[in-house]
Amino acid sequence: MSELRKDPVVGRWVIISGERGRRPSDFGPEPARPRLASCVFCPGYEDKTPPEILAGRPPDGRPNGPGWSFRVVANKFPALRIEGELEPTGEGPYDRMNGVGAHEVIIESAQHDATLATMSVDAVADVFLACRERVLDLKKDTRFHYILIFKNHGEAAGASLEHPHTQLIATPIIPIMVSEELAGAFTYFEIKERCVWCDIVREERRGRRRLILESDGFVALAPFAPRFPFETWLLPGRHRSAFEDSGVDELRALAGALGTLLRRMNRVLNDPPFNFMLHTAPLHESRLDHFHWHLEIIPKLTRVAGFEWGSGFFINPVAPEDATTALREAAG
Amino acid sequence: MSELRKDPVVGRWVIISGERGRRPSDFGPEPARPRLASCVFCPGYEDKTPPEILAGRPPDGRPNGPGWSFRVVANKFPALRIEGELEPTGEGPYDRMNGVGAHEVIIESAQHDATLATMSVDAVADVFLACRERVLDLKKDTRFHYILIFKNHGEAAGASLEHPHTQLIATPIIPIMVSEELAGAFTYFEIKERCVWCDIVREERRGRRRLILESDGFVALAPFAPRFPFETWLLPGRHRSAFEDSGVDELRALAGALGTLLRRMNRVLNDPPFNFMLHTAPLHESRLDHFHWHLEIIPKLTRVAGFEWGSGFFINPVAPEDATTALREAAG
Repeated sequence: MSELRKDPVVGRWVIISGERGRRPSDFGPEPARPRLASCVFCPGYEDKTPPEILAGRPPDGRPNGPGWSFRVVANKFPALRIEGELEPTGEGPYDRMNGVGAHEVIIESAQHDATLATMSVDAVADVFLACRERVLDLKKDTRFHYILIFKNHGEAAGASLEHPHTQLIATPIIPIMVSEELAGAFTYFEIKERCVWCDIVREERRGRRRLILESDGFVALAPFAPRFPFETWLLPGRHRSAFEDSGVDELRALAGALGTLLRRMNRVLNDPPFNFMLHTAPLHESRLDHFHWHLEIIPKLTRVAGFEWGSGFFINPVAPEDATTALREAAG
Repeated sequence: MSELRKDPVVGRWVIISGERGRRPSDFGPEPARPRLASCVFCPGYEDKTPPEILAGRPPDGRPNGPGWSFRVVANKFPALRIEGELEPTGEGPYDRMNGVGAHEVIIESAQHDATLATMSVDAVADVFLACRERVLDLKKDTRFHYILIFKNHGEAAGASLEHPHTQLIATPIIPIMVSEELAGAFTYFEIKERCVWCDIVREERRGRRRLILESDGFVALAPFAPRFPFETWLLPGRHRSAFEDSGVDELRALAGALGTLLRRMNRVLNDPPFNFMLHTAPLHESRLDHFHWHLEIIPKLTRVAGFEWGSGFFINPVAPEDATTALREAAG
């Protein structure tokens, strides 16, 4: 059973993961990764994953058999478990609770070597529609306060399986990075009565220094103070606080903009490993004037080292204006 | 010239590093690292580094020649530059200032393959004494508010040169991670009138569940909620807020405890790459009842991926109690 623990100094929670537990003797300088002869996410191996929660199938399709275009399954090695109560407890100066949550995998395509950059807009839109459906379902579970949708693409970005997939983790606590965004955006709103992301979009539309692309109501921009080279934010041009309130047309537009952006990144950066993380409003207060949902995309190009881990400062060797120029010129 | 920029949402500063600037075409999936035929930190190549600021030499030794036991030099590719004024400016919703600071390298030994785990206690103590001397000197420069001392050991932990070295970066802003520790510790102190780290030391001395070693007044412990497997904090057993106020005996005790800890980590984890980061009180308010200086040591054993970058939650596959047991039993 995994466990949530809170750092008594900064209030950051961590997951001590029993399910993924390793013994000290398991560590070499790099974590050992099991190499699989066959891919458990490929068609024909449906019995190697937990049963599907949702899938794209023809009307006469049989669950957990082949013939699907996407599948959602529980993660076989979940960071958090769906069963149980939170049971928060104290221990001396410390706080902990049970590792209750949900950890699901969206297998994006039946094709082992597909990517979000090469799939059709409809197929990518299906991935986001599946995410939306899962969020709307998990939102009914009052134990959960947040759902983080994220993707690890490439081994250097933390993917343990090559087959294209996105993940979601529902947590009983609003993650500290989202809390910090909520707090900062609330303070900004209190002073200016405007959403900070709306202001950023306005600024970049006017100055265009960090505006990478605009397409069907979505804007991709390089943030002014990016932690990583080529970090990009993709967000609705109009104020929208909750991802799960998006309509089908909006998710299709998101899929189109993301595909374009990833193809350009591949061209400029030579198919980089990357992560994306979707920041949306908390599940139980999803209509917010001060929060604007956005997808953060970070190619994995630099190493994070002692200075970053110790300070929270990031050293970024590429100015976002230069990244913007490169990604704009890669259009075609 | 590098530049400091502030994220308008969460208030996190980043360094856009002109000095380390790379063109988009420089990026493959992994950053290119120049491979050197000879090591610029080895004796005989003193003219390949900026002139030394401080060194361990016999009384008749000649600066910038061979014969040294340690050297402190400016970083040839600094993240921040010593010259210039801060000149904070606004631009639309954004804030920036010049990238003013200091970035120095402490070359720990003349021996290319020495490590803090194999060097004598006196030689390691000299490294910390050199750090203290540099902090006391840089502290006179009122532009600087913080100095982070850190180390990257091994390529996977971000070291670009093998030769053993520690670094320091002086910043005109208190780094956000230190601010968060200061704020959390201040709140704790306001409620309890006790330093949170003193309470942690007391708790671990009593329960001993996460106490790795105690030696000459220094305590090594696994934090209750570690971000990383085998993360370890090394700190004075008695309340001390500022590293630079440490006496020679204290720094010698720190050197002894760190050497012991690193040898045990090497035994248990097979010579892992690692980072350490020293958190101490800010330069201009260094006598604090609520802050306790400490060295955070993180072996690089896991990958940080989308979930961590998006949430600030860390998934740690090793319970700190298990890490403690392994590091205690490795004694010898």
